[in-house]
Amino acid sequence: MLAEIITIGDEILIGQIVDTNSAWMAKELNKIGLAVKQITSVSDNAAHIVSTLNEAQKRADIILITGGLGPTKDDITKLTLSKYFNMPLRQDKVTLDHITSIFARLNRPMIESNIRQADVPDGCTVIQNANGTAPCMWFEHQGKIIVSMPGVPFEMMYLMEEEIIPRIKTAFKLPVIIHQTMLTAGLGESFLAQEIADIEDSIPSHIKLAYLPKLGQVRLRLSASGSDEELLKNEVSAITEQIVARISKYVVVADDLTLEKAILDKMKAMDLTLSTAESCTGGYISHLITQHAGSSAVFAGGAVVYSYDLKESILGVNHKTLNDFGAVSEQTVREMVQGAILHFKTDCAIAVSGIAGPDGGMPDKPVGTVWIAVAHKQQVVAKVFNFGGKRVQNIERSATAAFTLLLNLLKQDV
Amino acid sequence: MLAEIITIGDEILIGQIVDTNSAWMAKELNKIGLAVKQITSVSDNAAHIVSTLNEAQKRADIILITGGLGPTKDDITKLTLSKYFNMPLRQDKVTLDHITSIFARLNRPMIESNIRQADVPDGCTVIQNANGTAPCMWFEHQGKIIVSMPGVPFEMMYLMEEEIIPRIKTAFKLPVIIHQTMLTAGLGESFLAQEIADIEDSIPSHIKLAYLPKLGQVRLRLSASGSDEELLKNEVSAITEQIVARISKYVVVADDLTLEKAILDKMKAMDLTLSTAESCTGGYISHLITQHAGSSAVFAGGAVVYSYDLKESILGVNHKTLNDFGAVSEQTVREMVQGAILHFKTDCAIAVSGIAGPDGGMPDKPVGTVWIAVAHKQQVVAKVFNFGGKRVQNIERSATAAFTLLLNLLKQDV
Repeated sequence: MLAEIITIGDEILIGQIVDTNSAWMAKELNKIGLAVKQITSVSDNAAHIVSTLNEAQKRADIILITGGLGPTKDDITKLTLSKYFNMPLRQDKVTLDHITSIFARLNRPMIESNIRQADVPDGCTVIQNANGTAPCMWFEHQGKIIVSMPGVPFEMMYLMEEEIIPRIKTAFKLPVIIHQTMLTAGLGESFLAQEIADIEDSIPSHIKLAYLPKLGQVRLRLSASGSDEELLKNEVSAITEQIVARISKYVVVADDLTLEKAILDKMKAMDLTLSTAESCTGGYISHLITQHAGSSAVFAGGAVVYSYDLKESILGVNHKTLNDFGAVSEQTVREMVQGAILHFKTDCAIAVSGIAGPDGGMPDKPVGTVWIAVAHKQQVVAKVFNFGGKRVQNIERSATAAFTLLLNLLKQDV
Repeated sequence: MLAEIITIGDEILIGQIVDTNSAWMAKELNKIGLAVKQITSVSDNAAHIVSTLNEAQKRADIILITGGLGPTKDDITKLTLSKYFNMPLRQDKVTLDHITSIFARLNRPMIESNIRQADVPDGCTVIQNANGTAPCMWFEHQGKIIVSMPGVPFEMMYLMEEEIIPRIKTAFKLPVIIHQTMLTAGLGESFLAQEIADIEDSIPSHIKLAYLPKLGQVRLRLSASGSDEELLKNEVSAITEQIVARISKYVVVADDLTLEKAILDKMKAMDLTLSTAESCTGGYISHLITQHAGSSAVFAGGAVVYSYDLKESILGVNHKTLNDFGAVSEQTVREMVQGAILHFKTDCAIAVSGIAGPDGGMPDKPVGTVWIAVAHKQQVVAKVFNFGGKRVQNIERSATAAFTLLLNLLKQDV
């Protein structure tokens, strides 16, 4: 049993938006044992939508489509499906009532194009969209299932979680797919591979090992498929134990977590609190932390301070330190991290001061020069990095480096 | 002349990573007048890679492939292409020297798998990857061009910018594609469409109008293709003027900018400075602002404060206010925004205090309740929102709402 995802919209093909729907949907499908064979993005073009749909049905049994269901003229998915399945449009009363109630709640008049959103191909199963006006449509066609959903992420997510996934689980007996990820930091993928070469060679063919590198981190992922969940779990768990034992120095956590979530979990278990003092990362580090539910149990707060003035008034950095050594210096970043601990009253802190670029580089401190300090108890560790990349990458790498430094400092506290 | 993008990697199909490469590449290709017909993501499976490559060549002239070039066993793209083009692998001296120099610089030993990265299909054009060890390979095959690049984004980006785009521009006479985007806030897409229905009906067929909604914002995008750049520009510009004149109340900017970049530009022109006081958005607002180059000319800094204690000590919120009204209240958010202006010494400020969830909801303040205040000169505007969504969406919507409130306040200052 295989699934495919088709995302429709000119905005994807011209690169105006990143297709985040597909990854989210693929993850949800994999959780219920449904592997995704292919993800295809096509423009709002009827002929291309039809040929893509035909190709997808040759490979997969369930096709999930997002996008192209808006009320405006550029959206043609519904009309295309109506013709494809030879199901003329009819007005759906339940959908119309739903749309009418949304507009009544917003106290807005309905216009012709809103009413037309209640038209559906006659013969499909109509599934109401609690978060929007475009209904979801479920087609059964020559033994295949084709589902059309809106492309707005939170509308699609609600429909997947509440409607589509439960219906798929009821309709099919699905195989089991198990993934186990190990997050590592500090060693490149080829060296990790060398360290565990003999283990990798011994892995049976229904289990795959993949290396997923990302700026300073490598994820190792085992994927097993079969029918006996208990057996697969035991097999994967045994291999995971072997690998973790071999490269324990580099394993952050044997789970598919982000680096900052692994740190949050560790700090929560150690009953430690954290604050941040950010310059060039501009709030990105505190954002990464606070996007996780429950982060406030560990994270007290942080300051983003660009100017000398604010580094002094908010964090208590000495005027003389800034004048003598500059904002991007070991001395300043050490005072920033201590200032964060003092003013935000936390056990640990992260401080970053650097030149993210593209401007602000100097001969002795080019763009990409970043000083990072982390503190835990009385210990402060400071390190300089020369990322030399572009602004967004420098911000990203600074965050990864800061988390890795803090993690290593916490590891010493056992 | 059409292009297609194929991204290879199991991690995409199981939803472990979001494919951000495709959007970036599509944008770059469109800039040089090369439309992308389809984006296809497939797993590390040789047969599927081959069939995808065959299908793509039926539709497009240039196929850009990313991913599957790492040194580890799960990466099979190079071997698959070698067999597909019937070009046996040979060791490339220049590539080997490049890899050797990288390892020498890192002071690390080279292992067998690193050396094998210098193997390339005999007959392709090898393009050195300045940011990594996997070389880029350019194939010419039955009148089509197929390029294989590493999937690591900053390696791919460098290769595209420095090598692939210039080579494509040299090789072909490309048509012109022009996009013009208008960012609007405050009116839904169906109402916008109604407002400009007659303008939309008059648009010639070589120009398309698309509506791209995203939590509280709608982008209108005109896309024109043809051969005469000047003519297309004039046509698009005339339609843009008509639309902007019609819906001027809702147009933030007639450009493809993010909301925060439009605000930064506007504030810079008005010579105003900005600070933030964030609770539930946890640094996301300051991160959105500071990811833009040059933001420090406007943005002075900000505080992320979760506890009552820090709201008092960092921002000067009154203890009595917090006790009497709670952290998520009009009174608190007004004192937060004034505290930000005072302590960060700025002309304008944004303050947000809310319940992002999933925990922390109360009967009178459920999850998704967010108070936002914006301040400019002596004016403070505060408003409550009930987003009621999930954590990440609540954070995202809070940021959009805050920027829209600030923008409207700035608009009054003329």
